[in-house]
Amino acid sequence: MGIVEIDADHTPSTGSGATTGRYGDGSGLAVTSDVIALQLAHRSVRKFTSDDVSEDQLRALVAAAQSAPTSSNLQAWSVVAVRDPERKRRLATLAGGQGFVDHAPVLLVWVADLSRARRLAARSGLAVDATDYLETTIIGFVDAALAAQNAVVAAESLGLGSTYVGAIRNHPREVAAELGLPDGAVATFGLAVGVPDPSEDAGVKPRLPQGAVLHHETYDAEAADAHLPAYDERLGAYNGRHGLTGVWTERVLQRLAGPSSMAGRHVLREVLTDLGLRSR
Amino acid sequence: MGIVEIDADHTPSTGSGATTGRYGDGSGLAVTSDVIALQLAHRSVRKFTSDDVSEDQLRALVAAAQSAPTSSNLQAWSVVAVRDPERKRRLATLAGGQGFVDHAPVLLVWVADLSRARRLAARSGLAVDATDYLETTIIGFVDAALAAQNAVVAAESLGLGSTYVGAIRNHPREVAAELGLPDGAVATFGLAVGVPDPSEDAGVKPRLPQGAVLHHETYDAEAADAHLPAYDERLGAYNGRHGLTGVWTERVLQRLAGPSSMAGRHVLREVLTDLGLRSR
Repeated sequence: MGIVEIDADHTPSTGSGATTGRYGDGSGLAVTSDVIALQLAHRSVRKFTSDDVSEDQLRALVAAAQSAPTSSNLQAWSVVAVRDPERKRRLATLAGGQGFVDHAPVLLVWVADLSRARRLAARSGLAVDATDYLETTIIGFVDAALAAQNAVVAAESLGLGSTYVGAIRNHPREVAAELGLPDGAVATFGLAVGVPDPSEDAGVKPRLPQGAVLHHETYDAEAADAHLPAYDERLGAYNGRHGLTGVWTERVLQRLAGPSSMAGRHVLREVLTDLGLRSR
Repeated sequence: MGIVEIDADHTPSTGSGATTGRYGDGSGLAVTSDVIALQLAHRSVRKFTSDDVSEDQLRALVAAAQSAPTSSNLQAWSVVAVRDPERKRRLATLAGGQGFVDHAPVLLVWVADLSRARRLAARSGLAVDATDYLETTIIGFVDAALAAQNAVVAAESLGLGSTYVGAIRNHPREVAAELGLPDGAVATFGLAVGVPDPSEDAGVKPRLPQGAVLHHETYDAEAADAHLPAYDERLGAYNGRHGLTGVWTERVLQRLAGPSSMAGRHVLREVLTDLGLRSR
């Protein structure tokens, strides 16, 4: 069976036995649902029409985000919706000059937020010393990620598209200043949201074969890594079709080579301390 | 308008203008979708029937997880599916003795995984020194969270329920040993998955009013925090209906009081170093 074509309006094929482009090999799922079909059809959207994202749509995305689980119901995140063209442009520049950020009608900046707890503590005259620890910083990042991913899926269910902007961590101090973030809050990643421009040449990117990431009972590195050569071949072919070069292995090694490949993010630990997230 | 009742089989009310229990105040959304309605109806499931989660269902959840965005396509996560009753029991004990973990047919342990990149590097004779930095540890945690949250929503679309188990971080060294995790990999959280037992007395937990987490253009602490007293009242009423006590503010302050309120997780930074994630 061949790869299912995804329509420009993101209507995926559904139903039991649907195949998917997600693994790039036409492998199918014996069990599925409309929701799973929508998830499997996910692609990054970096080209948007001039259509706006309405306030009602935004409220729906944030309600979905808030419905995600959160550690101990701490809800240790906030989100800043940026529409102002000048502010968006400045944030796009801080995030490595990625033009698509600038052209999205709304940029959602997801914030790991321990500042709310600090304010509660200050008003009560109590301490929240747990906010000084790496564990709690990570709760903030994970809570933000769970929430944001619900918003991504919600957006796609409304015909919107998005792309995460991890490069918001290239200059976290400047981003915090731009957004007026209080002590104890840091921007984790952005999410550019808009109506997908059907002219964008983008497909469903194949991921690692499932056997490379799913282990049973215990971790089996040898069995998992046996799937990597086939993936390199598939991703290389996909990249070739989309004007990109290189196989996965090369790209991973380049991206993780060392501090010089990290776009300034090797200092994140120091920056977090400056922003009031000591992460000890 | 009152709070919409969610059926035991999680069929939420849908359609434009649907109200939701998510905010505990009957507030509605002008824009929605079947997917968003499913997300809004999310609840933690800690009581499962004796029904199994099939391998086909598991494959669908992991395919959904792999379809989530991932930083630079690094796919810096893995997942270990634990079904063996003895192993599940040992992990439940390590995670603070939470019985529901033990009783779920499958426990998915989501792993922040830089070990795959390390193995690629070793085979190529290259360095991946970026894996020594906190930024890269956080990529692993965030990638795992994005993936896992797709699995949570996928599970609910199949009539399954789940609850995250952050307490898997209470004893990360022991969990790593139990699962045979290689150097450079750490368990981020568990996810207990099964068929919801309709006898469980659980509802849709109200979250903070949207105005407490959603900011426009810049962060406005005063405007956001003005919503907290009403939330304390709503969550207090919800807790009362479900045999729990306390308002949100109290619980946050207790949970974040200091190292003694962190169930051993205040040493996460040292433990990560031991597990090969130096997080400098």
